[in-house]
Amino acid sequence: SLHRIKASGLKLQLCTNETQATRESFVRKLRAMGFDISVAQVTAPAPAACHLLRERGLRPHLLVHNDLIPEFAEIDKTNPNCVVLGDAAENFTYANLNEAFRLLIGMEKPVLISLGKGRYYKETDGLKLDVGAYMKALEYACDIQAEVVGKPAKRFFESALAELGVPPEQAIMIGDDIVNDVGGAQQCGMRALQVRTGKYRPSDENHPEVKPDAYVNNLAEAVDIILQEL
Amino acid sequence: SLHRIKASGLKLQLCTNETQATRESFVRKLRAMGFDISVAQVTAPAPAACHLLRERGLRPHLLVHNDLIPEFAEIDKTNPNCVVLGDAAENFTYANLNEAFRLLIGMEKPVLISLGKGRYYKETDGLKLDVGAYMKALEYACDIQAEVVGKPAKRFFESALAELGVPPEQAIMIGDDIVNDVGGAQQCGMRALQVRTGKYRPSDENHPEVKPDAYVNNLAEAVDIILQEL
Repeated sequence: SLHRIKASGLKLQLCTNETQATRESFVRKLRAMGFDISVAQVTAPAPAACHLLRERGLRPHLLVHNDLIPEFAEIDKTNPNCVVLGDAAENFTYANLNEAFRLLIGMEKPVLISLGKGRYYKETDGLKLDVGAYMKALEYACDIQAEVVGKPAKRFFESALAELGVPPEQAIMIGDDIVNDVGGAQQCGMRALQVRTGKYRPSDENHPEVKPDAYVNNLAEAVDIILQEL
Repeated sequence: SLHRIKASGLKLQLCTNETQATRESFVRKLRAMGFDISVAQVTAPAPAACHLLRERGLRPHLLVHNDLIPEFAEIDKTNPNCVVLGDAAENFTYANLNEAFRLLIGMEKPVLISLGKGRYYKETDGLKLDVGAYMKALEYACDIQAEVVGKPAKRFFESALAELGVPPEQAIMIGDDIVNDVGGAQQCGMRALQVRTGKYRPSDENHPEVKPDAYVNNLAEAVDIILQEL
């Protein structure tokens, strides 16, 4: 399907909430699976966070997965004035959570930047709490609201569109997540298709707030429809 | 002050949100400090939770401090159908949180009982996230509301009153916490004094929701006033 999109001359950008690896290693994995994708074609939360940190002169304390740390290599992390929270997995220790909390509560105006707000995800050894749960813990303890980068943040989709150089009404999002993919893209003015694969659940079709522009059985069918409409 | 209350013939009950020790060891500590208190005179979240578990035939999975586990010795914990969350401190590991989450999300109707909802507390080595933060994490991940036992739950004060055998209008709460002590007791129909010691902050006097019946500088002054009014 990706080959057919490329052959048609359409532009393509992957939007992921992956925060357990750098874009480089994420792309390496995809290429090993046969996908012809470059790093510039991937929009991910950590680079979006770096953009925001630079823009606002913020120096982060990182509570993220070890494999994500290289994404922040160029960022000044001395004397932190904000906390960046990712899916830290094994780094979500009692000591690390207390440390992030103490930094936040010690700030005049605590700034918590969260690389997503997922509730949980599945791994081979079972379900795991995702970054959103830990974000809620810190929000409650500090009585603050985190700033979420990554899907479904409007800004995240805007940066993907900027990378493509197309306005939202000329872009279509294809995703399996009704809120993060479909809802996020639509709030940005894009149309969005939900694939009935992956995270999709039949109950999504009765979602109280989000309604995709269309359902498709899989990515191949989505590409069929888009190419037909050209 | 406690001696004077006792000498006056007034009944006394201590209401604590302590969940890092059994009532027995809590009382032992107080007695070592010279306070003439018995276990029956202490109302604490863990015994309140046990009462609720028995009443509803619930079998808990415990995510609590090791020193609290003896409080649940008599409770059937096989094949758990609820999770009881306390201030687990070092037991708040990534693995333990995922385990509690998996049990909850696997239940047809997840039941989370939280022994308090404090945001944080101070220890000699610094501020620590309290049980409320972890409660929020599990609530968000499972899309549920926890049932809070302990202050400020109305039921908690009711059980203290039942232990005393007095109606709320004949009881006075003295405490340093504007929400948990004063607000909780007032919601139960009791009067409540806030002492200007301990957790008290001057900003409490502008609290948007809770207003104590009176302020006192300390416990001794509270006892003076109560004895004068008899």
